[in-house]
Amino acid sequence: MDPYMIQTNGNGNLASVLDVHVNIGGRSSVPGKMKSRKARWSVRPSDMSNKTFNPIRAIVDSMEVKPNPNKSMISLSIGDPTVFGNLPTDPEVTQAMKDALDSGKYNGYAPSTGYLTSREEIASYYHCPEAPLEAKDVILTSGCSQAIELCLAVLANPGQNILVPRPGFSLYKTLAESMGIEVKLYNLLPEKSWEIDLKQLESLIDEKTACLIVNNPSNPCGSVFRKSHLQKILAVAARQCVPILADEIYGDMVFSDCKYEPLATLSTNVPILACGGLAKRWLVPGWRMGWILIHDRRNIFGNEIRDGLVKLSQRILGPCTIVQGALKSILRRTPQEFYHNTLSFLKSNADLCYGALAAIPGLQPVRPSGAMYLMVGIEMEHFPDFENDVEFTERLVAEQSVQCLPATCFEYPNFFRVVITVPEVMMLEACSRIQEFCEQHYHCAEGSQEECDK
Amino acid sequence: MDPYMIQTNGNGNLASVLDVHVNIGGRSSVPGKMKSRKARWSVRPSDMSNKTFNPIRAIVDSMEVKPNPNKSMISLSIGDPTVFGNLPTDPEVTQAMKDALDSGKYNGYAPSTGYLTSREEIASYYHCPEAPLEAKDVILTSGCSQAIELCLAVLANPGQNILVPRPGFSLYKTLAESMGIEVKLYNLLPEKSWEIDLKQLESLIDEKTACLIVNNPSNPCGSVFRKSHLQKILAVAARQCVPILADEIYGDMVFSDCKYEPLATLSTNVPILACGGLAKRWLVPGWRMGWILIHDRRNIFGNEIRDGLVKLSQRILGPCTIVQGALKSILRRTPQEFYHNTLSFLKSNADLCYGALAAIPGLQPVRPSGAMYLMVGIEMEHFPDFENDVEFTERLVAEQSVQCLPATCFEYPNFFRVVITVPEVMMLEACSRIQEFCEQHYHCAEGSQEECDK
Repeated sequence: MDPYMIQTNGNGNLASVLDVHVNIGGRSSVPGKMKSRKARWSVRPSDMSNKTFNPIRAIVDSMEVKPNPNKSMISLSIGDPTVFGNLPTDPEVTQAMKDALDSGKYNGYAPSTGYLTSREEIASYYHCPEAPLEAKDVILTSGCSQAIELCLAVLANPGQNILVPRPGFSLYKTLAESMGIEVKLYNLLPEKSWEIDLKQLESLIDEKTACLIVNNPSNPCGSVFRKSHLQKILAVAARQCVPILADEIYGDMVFSDCKYEPLATLSTNVPILACGGLAKRWLVPGWRMGWILIHDRRNIFGNEIRDGLVKLSQRILGPCTIVQGALKSILRRTPQEFYHNTLSFLKSNADLCYGALAAIPGLQPVRPSGAMYLMVGIEMEHFPDFENDVEFTERLVAEQSVQCLPATCFEYPNFFRVVITVPEVMMLEACSRIQEFCEQHYHCAEGSQEECDK
Repeated sequence: MDPYMIQTNGNGNLASVLDVHVNIGGRSSVPGKMKSRKARWSVRPSDMSNKTFNPIRAIVDSMEVKPNPNKSMISLSIGDPTVFGNLPTDPEVTQAMKDALDSGKYNGYAPSTGYLTSREEIASYYHCPEAPLEAKDVILTSGCSQAIELCLAVLANPGQNILVPRPGFSLYKTLAESMGIEVKLYNLLPEKSWEIDLKQLESLIDEKTACLIVNNPSNPCGSVFRKSHLQKILAVAARQCVPILADEIYGDMVFSDCKYEPLATLSTNVPILACGGLAKRWLVPGWRMGWILIHDRRNIFGNEIRDGLVKLSQRILGPCTIVQGALKSILRRTPQEFYHNTLSFLKSNADLCYGALAAIPGLQPVRPSGAMYLMVGIEMEHFPDFENDVEFTERLVAEQSVQCLPATCFEYPNFFRVVITVPEVMMLEACSRIQEFCEQHYHCAEGSQEECDK
């Protein structure tokens, strides 16, 4: 028998089935008259892909980066704590994955929002009396990036706008503009520890504002908002009736002298979608385990936004089921010591880096309070060799083989961002090279000879 | 010291940095006059989320499914081979994951298109002289669903259309309509082993047609196109200058008496994006490892489509890095016996199921050649108790606790789909219950008493 051929039983004829189908389907399968067609090949990328613009890639790729061949490369540019091997995840985290594999229970499809048990674990981990959570309030996603994507996709239509911090993580703009959503930048004030310029923020809000993104602790600033400031942000949102997307991927990653306050714990009336994930705190960004926590005690999002998120999650389903299966053990068994050690290391490196760079004429580092970054202002008037932060960092690679991200990547020219997850000895070496670089290029600004003579 | 407070060095003043910033930024931070604002809360889900419609969820959720309490539930509805535990993945696959975990090398971010080494492995695995592949032709994705999403997103703009098989996997329509892309359904012909009605297909093409989706082997049909038919499909695409999205997630999953031909191996001139993944052949759908293979020997996609795919991949990054790290061993070490055993089991179950259902008056099963499904026509005129396939399958659950998907989920009324991955004994029991169900509800159609008397 021809294996490709159909074989049917003899109890009826297939045509009768098909007739019913065609009748019900209501469409004729007879070809219509010829339509206008393409005469030749012309395959163009969509507007959406053209509008998907990643400034970091664009800026970094366009940089003429040829490191100094006589100096080993030190990259302080990538927000990936695993690059140097000095910050491995905890053995319990790895063991949890192996247990999930061995169980054989986590190879099939999970619901698109994640296994119920995994969502329960996240809910119970982040639950607190001021911001209660149940499994139904949790959606698991393929990394915090997909969490942000789903939140923007459910809250905003093309033509609406969102409020995004400047300086801020570039993905907000990349995602929004690809979806035709306008980005309005509100200012963070370095002289106020990167607090939000609340008046300017509020002035940006109009009837087309779909959400306010608050990133705390901050990438790229390493800043942590104090409680009173968070309350003021919430007051703006409440007054203007704007929901908040709280990007809290660096949540709990604050140095011991500060306290991290999840935004939702400070509000009873502003609806908040809080995004997080395993990436940073558990040091496994490649595993792509993120989540959305829905805080909506006044039922302002209501079922519609919840259902919208569920529907959007069905497009590509959620994160890898092995990581989902490991979540319970990861959250319960990772020792406190692991979190403590990570933060001690980051704090120590932040102090080292801040101290070294603060002593360099022409640089203005801003001391971080959390996350894993440090922003450094460049007094451009003292570096006339360079046109801007992009050229500054480019030449820093060429001469000293030290790579930092120009903060133009974060819509914030004349700063650069330093990643403080590198081993201490590398951190010191990098600072020493930055010092040599600055000394070689520092010029006294006109009219400030006095200062240079000091 | 207040830990939240900024601390700067004494070598300059931050204002000078900020001035430069503000000057370059070109935006004033002074609030403008008040804009029109929202007077009260009104948060509505976006049009995109409203347009994201999953027919399987909609139909299944609306079914009044209360199984018969006296019969254990047998679900033949979910295309997940892992549900019953009878089809575990190979131990080498699990071991490859553990090795990737133990190496500690795969915890960080991979490039958004995947590790180069992992892309090389996929390229080399699927490379053949007729359809050569290099790493640059491979993009790793979060499951085959994201592969399909990226392909549609790069090829089609809102207002364009794509050609989708009927019956066919519902995700194509879900994704396309959420993006404002029109879906045109072309017919598969059950009496021709589900081959495409090529004339009708060609009649649908117009200047707005962005791509043709070819799903081979087919979900839900379990059919496998023979080489000559694939060549005819390619001829249509070449004549009409329409690129192809080949959904080959069931590639190589064909029974021993058929041969699977990757579409790209049969064409030198039609540009093809072939989508695949680990889900089905390696029996780990939850792991979310998919890929796009770019076949473009005439350089019709060119760099623009490739760049577009890369840019889109940066939105949420790719699949879990542990699975990426395990790919090499998974592809190289999984024994042939594993693939063989899976297919033998599926073939045997397909024969069992086909044989049992073919003997039931009123049903018209179509024998599959691959994948893991079997479509069954319902001669509705013999089942006047039921209005349609949805009601038929609904009552099958209520009376016999057997769940099958009504093919209305696949735009194909009066059929239902059976998943053939269940254990043999369960398959037999299910068929026996379906037989009882049909016998209880079968009526002779008017004017065909003769047949009933036989």
